[in-house]
Amino acid sequence: MSQSTIICYGELLLRLSAPGRGLLLQTPSLDVHVGGAEANVAVSLARFGHRVGAVGTVADNALGESAIGELRRHGVDTRFMRSRPGRMGLYFIQAGALQRPSRVLYDRADSAFTRHTDYDWKTCLEGAGWLHLSGVTPALGLACADSAIAAAEAARAAGAEVSFDGNFRSLLWRAWDADPPAILRRLMGTASVLFADHRDMAVVLGAECDADSIEDKVVQAATQAFKAFPHVRYMACTQRRQVDVDYHVLSAMLVERDGSVHTTPSCTLAHVVDRIGGGDAFAAGVLHGLVTGMAAGDALRFGFGAACLKHSVPGDFNLVGVEDVEAFLSEDGFHVRR
Amino acid sequence: MSQSTIICYGELLLRLSAPGRGLLLQTPSLDVHVGGAEANVAVSLARFGHRVGAVGTVADNALGESAIGELRRHGVDTRFMRSRPGRMGLYFIQAGALQRPSRVLYDRADSAFTRHTDYDWKTCLEGAGWLHLSGVTPALGLACADSAIAAAEAARAAGAEVSFDGNFRSLLWRAWDADPPAILRRLMGTASVLFADHRDMAVVLGAECDADSIEDKVVQAATQAFKAFPHVRYMACTQRRQVDVDYHVLSAMLVERDGSVHTTPSCTLAHVVDRIGGGDAFAAGVLHGLVTGMAAGDALRFGFGAACLKHSVPGDFNLVGVEDVEAFLSEDGFHVRR
Amino acid sequence: MSQSTIICYGELLLRLSAPGRGLLLQTPSLDVHVGGAEANVAVSLARFGHRVGAVGTVADNALGESAIGELRRHGVDTRFMRSRPGRMGLYFIQAGALQRPSRVLYDRADSAFTRHTDYDWKTCLEGAGWLHLSGVTPALGLACADSAIAAAEAARAAGAEVSFDGNFRSLLWRAWDADPPAILRRLMGTASVLFADHRDMAVVLGAECDADSIEDKVVQAATQAFKAFPHVRYMACTQRRQVDVDYHVLSAMLVERDGSVHTTPSCTLAHVVDRIGGGDAFAAGVLHGLVTGMAAGDALRFGFGAACLKHSVPGDFNLVGVEDVEAFLSEDGFHVRR
Amino acid sequence: MSQSTIICYGELLLRLSAPGRGLLLQTPSLDVHVGGAEANVAVSLARFGHRVGAVGTVADNALGESAIGELRRHGVDTRFMRSRPGRMGLYFIQAGALQRPSRVLYDRADSAFTRHTDYDWKTCLEGAGWLHLSGVTPALGLACADSAIAAAEAARAAGAEVSFDGNFRSLLWRAWDADPPAILRRLMGTASVLFADHRDMAVVLGAECDADSIEDKVVQAATQAFKAFPHVRYMACTQRRQVDVDYHVLSAMLVERDGSVHTTPSCTLAHVVDRIGGGDAFAAGVLHGLVTGMAAGDALRFGFGAACLKHSVPGDFNLVGVEDVEAFLSEDGFHVRR
Amino acid sequence: MSQSTIICYGELLLRLSAPGRGLLLQTPSLDVHVGGAEANVAVSLARFGHRVGAVGTVADNALGESAIGELRRHGVDTRFMRSRPGRMGLYFIQAGALQRPSRVLYDRADSAFTRHTDYDWKTCLEGAGWLHLSGVTPALGLACADSAIAAAEAARAAGAEVSFDGNFRSLLWRAWDADPPAILRRLMGTASVLFADHRDMAVVLGAECDADSIEDKVVQAATQAFKAFPHVRYMACTQRRQVDVDYHVLSAMLVERDGSVHTTPSCTLAHVVDRIGGGDAFAAGVLHGLVTGMAAGDALRFGFGAACLKHSVPGDFNLVGVEDVEAFLSEDGFHVRR
Amino acid sequence: MSQSTIICYGELLLRLSAPGRGLLLQTPSLDVHVGGAEANVAVSLARFGHRVGAVGTVADNALGESAIGELRRHGVDTRFMRSRPGRMGLYFIQAGALQRPSRVLYDRADSAFTRHTDYDWKTCLEGAGWLHLSGVTPALGLACADSAIAAAEAARAAGAEVSFDGNFRSLLWRAWDADPPAILRRLMGTASVLFADHRDMAVVLGAECDADSIEDKVVQAATQAFKAFPHVRYMACTQRRQVDVDYHVLSAMLVERDGSVHTTPSCTLAHVVDRIGGGDAFAAGVLHGLVTGMAAGDALRFGFGAACLKHSVPGDFNLVGVEDVEAFLSEDGFHVRR
Repeated sequence: MSQSTIICYGELLLRLSAPGRGLLLQTPSLDVHVGGAEANVAVSLARFGHRVGAVGTVADNALGESAIGELRRHGVDTRFMRSRPGRMGLYFIQAGALQRPSRVLYDRADSAFTRHTDYDWKTCLEGAGWLHLSGVTPALGLACADSAIAAAEAARAAGAEVSFDGNFRSLLWRAWDADPPAILRRLMGTASVLFADHRDMAVVLGAECDADSIEDKVVQAATQAFKAFPHVRYMACTQRRQVDVDYHVLSAMLVERDGSVHTTPSCTLAHVVDRIGGGDAFAAGVLHGLVTGMAAGDALRFGFGAACLKHSVPGDFNLVGVEDVEAFLSEDGFHVRR
Repeated sequence: MSQSTIICYGELLLRLSAPGRGLLLQTPSLDVHVGGAEANVAVSLARFGHRVGAVGTVADNALGESAIGELRRHGVDTRFMRSRPGRMGLYFIQAGALQRPSRVLYDRADSAFTRHTDYDWKTCLEGAGWLHLSGVTPALGLACADSAIAAAEAARAAGAEVSFDGNFRSLLWRAWDADPPAILRRLMGTASVLFADHRDMAVVLGAECDADSIEDKVVQAATQAFKAFPHVRYMACTQRRQVDVDYHVLSAMLVERDGSVHTTPSCTLAHVVDRIGGGDAFAAGVLHGLVTGMAAGDALRFGFGAACLKHSVPGDFNLVGVEDVEAFLSEDGFHVRR
Repeated sequence: MSQSTIICYGELLLRLSAPGRGLLLQTPSLDVHVGGAEANVAVSLARFGHRVGAVGTVADNALGESAIGELRRHGVDTRFMRSRPGRMGLYFIQAGALQRPSRVLYDRADSAFTRHTDYDWKTCLEGAGWLHLSGVTPALGLACADSAIAAAEAARAAGAEVSFDGNFRSLLWRAWDADPPAILRRLMGTASVLFADHRDMAVVLGAECDADSIEDKVVQAATQAFKAFPHVRYMACTQRRQVDVDYHVLSAMLVERDGSVHTTPSCTLAHVVDRIGGGDAFAAGVLHGLVTGMAAGDALRFGFGAACLKHSVPGDFNLVGVEDVEAFLSEDGFHVRR
Repeated sequence: MSQSTIICYGELLLRLSAPGRGLLLQTPSLDVHVGGAEANVAVSLARFGHRVGAVGTVADNALGESAIGELRRHGVDTRFMRSRPGRMGLYFIQAGALQRPSRVLYDRADSAFTRHTDYDWKTCLEGAGWLHLSGVTPALGLACADSAIAAAEAARAAGAEVSFDGNFRSLLWRAWDADPPAILRRLMGTASVLFADHRDMAVVLGAECDADSIEDKVVQAATQAFKAFPHVRYMACTQRRQVDVDYHVLSAMLVERDGSVHTTPSCTLAHVVDRIGGGDAFAAGVLHGLVTGMAAGDALRFGFGAACLKHSVPGDFNLVGVEDVEAFLSEDGFHVRR
Repeated sequence: MSQSTIICYGELLLRLSAPGRGLLLQTPSLDVHVGGAEANVAVSLARFGHRVGAVGTVADNALGESAIGELRRHGVDTRFMRSRPGRMGLYFIQAGALQRPSRVLYDRADSAFTRHTDYDWKTCLEGAGWLHLSGVTPALGLACADSAIAAAEAARAAGAEVSFDGNFRSLLWRAWDADPPAILRRLMGTASVLFADHRDMAVVLGAECDADSIEDKVVQAATQAFKAFPHVRYMACTQRRQVDVDYHVLSAMLVERDGSVHTTPSCTLAHVVDRIGGGDAFAAGVLHGLVTGMAAGDALRFGFGAACLKHSVPGDFNLVGVEDVEAFLSEDGFHVRR
Repeated sequence: MSQSTIICYGELLLRLSAPGRGLLLQTPSLDVHVGGAEANVAVSLARFGHRVGAVGTVADNALGESAIGELRRHGVDTRFMRSRPGRMGLYFIQAGALQRPSRVLYDRADSAFTRHTDYDWKTCLEGAGWLHLSGVTPALGLACADSAIAAAEAARAAGAEVSFDGNFRSLLWRAWDADPPAILRRLMGTASVLFADHRDMAVVLGAECDADSIEDKVVQAATQAFKAFPHVRYMACTQRRQVDVDYHVLSAMLVERDGSVHTTPSCTLAHVVDRIGGGDAFAAGVLHGLVTGMAAGDALRFGFGAACLKHSVPGDFNLVGVEDVEAFLSEDGFHVRR
């Protein structure tokens, strides 16, 4: 499909989940998945048929090897993944139910990824058409922030486009002496596509949106973003309403630099299987649309379909394919496919 | 209960399912169930207390033996089940969720069932009051079609009644040089009870129904069926509306040769556990009603209750009993039964 | 938190459940939980930070030991739990789904608990501020009824308050030559807090409530209870409406001796994970409120929150903590807690 | 194969086992098998191709139904199995390892089987060529002992042969005011085949064997048995030496009334998978040999092969077939069978 | 490590195994692994650090995709794997124990691999230094045999070396009108390395070896092979003695064209975890040695170490690495590696 | 049993193991156990009936809570266990098989235990008769070493006896700028009982033992220890010979200050289930003997029995009881205990 490679740079994590709807260690076993915001985007794009390369660092042990193997299994090129001394970033999760929220315990401090941030970006980005980053990497510490900026600027310099997913996690930023707006502004300054909403822009640009509806707030934030960041052509985001932990209503919108606003109808997700990675699935879907030359509104719809379907797939990775998203969008019903 | 035996002839399949809501081989194990349209009816009738015999052929290996054992476990008489060289028909299934449809991969070609179609129908049908067939068997190839017709005509000749479930699967028919309408007409020509709707009749009789509502279409199709097939006394079918993959609304109707139309209220199935076999559960329930002398409307309601309850039971077989269906119909609530 | 210990006296049971939504022994394994009405209250209170002691008797074998270990694991003091010759009470459960009700098979007759009913209540209740009992224990036979009465009267004599949960199980009472009203009246005569509704009061006091609404019936029943039982200060109960087996609507109310009536809004439990122990979670929550000095309405709300959350937790025990209930009550949404 | 039916009368139990080599309830699940000394013989004979009928009583609930279904699954005729009020007999087992012995907890008191001992033996034994009993049934109480004697004498009267497996369990006999020798003598008095050794004969006849070797003791005991019980033609038993819990050395012998002694070489069972039911597998194998007209030594060898192979099969039932035993006896090696 | 790529051509199969030591479908689930003689070699070599490419065809469905993903996960280049209409080859396995042999049920007939045998060998072999084949592929039918020969001759023509593993499976050859010796001679005629013993040579060359010891027979067979096949430089094989199904004694030998004979000491495998793929692990290990320039005896020892270790790894793939084999060979003991 | 409490101070770890004999993450789940050298001793002593208290610090999250709960479940008093900010120490393990060694990946750096080393030893040790420590704690860093020394000296000052298990882990010591001999000498200087052998003494005292047999080396090392450390009365250790990963031969010895040497016969552990924690089980067993007043040789034998039995129990904890060890020592065979 796309001829130029898409590079995703970020940390690969092991996710350890309590089985079913049980509490953590209520029963003595854990299900293991591999995840990470950028890895999720990489796998999703690979399943959509793109040439995708992952850049990152894992622990030089069986856990790290296995995590890389999972990327490869799903079609991601891992030649730029490195094994280095240190530990794997982990996170533990217990799925919620009804009115009991899901709970994530991060155990990712001092991982091999954060210890080894020297990449030869020229080599990694050779032949790449896109670089995808998220706000998680710069939040992991100064070296990581510097590395993300170096990657983004190298991509820009090499003529590749940059997409950036805000993914603002105050918990991570608060763990060190950080200046998030300054760092995020440098990153967004390189980006052609932003996955962000008014809350991200409030953090980055400091200006609150005073519009009434969420839609208007997003449009206002996008206007600010287009003004602040000269390369940004699209800003896209999802809106989620949660009736309870298992029942969500999702919609999405995308604003173009020329002011065009695209929205989707809302979709009811009435028995959510796994919501982790929904935003990454959205980003991957929109990128798929843009990279393959869809009109902006169609790219949004594709991303929205991908995001909705992700909620039906266990694990962080959105393992659906283009034909699944197209079936979703064509609304051809829910009969058993034989 | 019923004194005369009900014979079900059809292929026994092994179903291999991805656990939970996972994708096929997302995790490296498969749950195994035994199924098959006619076997499902047989087990259901046995659980309702009937003397039921299965006729068919399985592979002469541990898989075939085990499949027969499952029928026997649930009370079906398997003395006419045969083990012959060849393979077991398989199907793989991944349950859908939300807007992601369930997916079935058939791997049943060239099974021992399709290779060995010579049965001594006289012996198999001795003492039988009913023979149940479905449209799956004739779709499996010419020898299977001939065998199904031979069975149906032998039953008719022996004074047994024939029930026939349309179960039209174009995928199967398309795999060989078949004339479905001709074959189905011969089978329906022997039947006293048809499980079919207007779409089946359009295939078989070629005449589209032009009514507005689905109910009217079914009535119109039934009128055509009664005209074309002299022995048919009842035509029954379910209607299913799917809000999403997990949330269905089901109703059912039955038309008598005298033109009487019976309908059920619709039932909301809001967290479907397993929908495979719902139609077979309906057929078994209606047959139970007719065989035990219920009025047509009561038989319909019993079949409808059975069909609804099937959606709560994992696997192809409807393992509920008469008292479960009666509790459903008497609407005595959902408190825990102690 | 509370300085005085809360003692819970009742039978510890092993619960053997069919996995997932399968039927009993549909697959050849059983999940094991520990439960029992009073044990559920004890664990819940321990998780809320209270000093809780369990009094009871288990079989002197690996099953009994393991059951005691589970109590201890969750923070209950088990120094007054005894191991004696006999068997463990068991119950088998198959979770329902859709319109198929859950089914419980009790296999608890002649357990070590019912055989050994001699406790040194003076020692067990030393330093205790509360004793919690339920209507299950006296229903298990004359010796158990006598023992429950002895416990309640010893508590009262020692200056401890008694709470009593009706939990009327006609199946158990019918197994012996019992006079339930007489026994229950003696127990309720010692209680400060009753978990009961108009149906319990009809059994105990023989007087039907003729009010129209359920709320009025409960108030009327409470009035009768306050009149009949001089120590009762609060009567509390939940109301449950079941749309289907997985979808319940819950609310709760509490009546004070001075006639004040407190109610909660109703809460939709749209994908119930496990409803066993919901009433016990409610009792524990209300007791937590009362013991920690909350106003009656706040205690009710806390109990209601605990009851709702229990439906999201597998097993009999309500493993949530005070902060979970507070989050529920403050309605701060269903986003993933990181 | 054999034309006359073999009837097995005894209690069907549910076995609940800790998974793998874990301790009971170390992890919160239990594997379920169906077993019971006589049921094990019945299933084994059915797998060897015989017409086998089981006579017994189970609880009239889902557990009992499921236990009967397991017998049927493996080819046993269950038309004489009855469902009656009461509980299922259970046993819990934790497999040992190394020097830690396996441990069985019986929880079978007061089962439906022991409560309902009235059978119409004439009907049950109609057309039967053999009746198989074991020493477990008479040990369960007076009514059971009477019932076993009634069955044995009815069989003898109807011209069927009786086989009896000593299976002496002092724990069970001690639970009531029993006179084991008197009861066992009446049963052995009807038997053509005894599965017993010198220890059983010491219990039954009171005379200790003073021979030096075990083999001589068994011969001496057999001589006593032939003298005491006029119908006994064969006495057979196994000898087991345990190097540790997982490593056994097994051999077997059979003595004929004419004094001929047959022995087998010993077989090393170096990684025992499941030893429960080994003796029952032996009995079934010897009976298979005798019923199909093998010479006594061949019947012994067949039984010995069956017993050895049972140790490789999880659960109580010996699910191997005639061809498996023949392969064992022909020593054609351990290569993978494709 | 090695700079030139090693290409492995053969069928990828799904293996469906009964869990633990249970019989097929004794419990209703199956563990899934991916395997196939040449795929096993490919994965093993990839784990040893080589550039390995797999050539083959899988079904164009989720099963085929997943099988390719497994190869990729373990580091095999899958760019020449194709998805085509048809079915996946399957095999079912039940692990044996004690004296009960393991049992394999093949269900691989008419797979996509056998239907689509047209490969562009020039492209597939570009830059390849080695091609590995086994006797399984030509046994699958005439088109497969032709395809294997085409591959081998194209490799030879392109200057790549060919290794060939006899893997004689009479069951497969017998399924069609085959002339195994003629076909195998053409294949061996291209090979530099043969994995074969005297039994293979008897099939291929028709001449029985009359030596006394197995070692002498192998040497004699090797002499015949060197004479018949001009390119063969090494012939290597393992010898296996089975004390029981779980306890094997393994040794290996290699003969060079100059007549040098290398042997290994025997290794006791006393608790075999999974023996499937042991021969493939041996071939991969020897190839690793040869490709990396080890002396013949060292290559043999490396292959032997790999083969022994494979018996400790569940599944078909030998997932150990070079350092594991080296630790085995250096005999540095069995203490826990921390 | 013993009236004075035994205090165990050390880190509680979560162990995450690959199921069965699989490699780490070969399948996507992990079994979870709780462990840690001193916790293992604590649980073992509690199962032997002692009053045991654990002192330590866990992460203040669900993982830490759960780990404490496991200690409590098995009867350890956890009132001195603290929850503090930080992470839980983890270790991953893949069990070996045959000649493939088990592999442990530690991920315990910077745990809450190592961050928070301030304990009020006076309170923790109040009423304690024994303090048990191991060489793991001081190896975790300077603060931990200081804390261990403080604990040991406080115990000594309070009149409690100290037992110390060498457990030398060079990997841990090497991670910081440590002087192991100096630290270990201070700790051993407080001890009455040392679990150590000649290798430990070589590290601590620098003097190699030049005796020929291992037994003589241990005696020589003990002599050095008694000289260097005035309070030591007993030095005990096990010797392990590994035939392969699953087959060990174990023996043990104990030297008294008066020079008496006690040895055990060796015990063959032919199918090891889980060897982790074997040394801790030995220490607990010897302590049990000493605390309950056994003669030194009897204490050694009890410890040895406990150590052997541990190898049959999954997980780190030795869950056997006194009666199990006594049965082992009395050699009353391996028949099933009913």
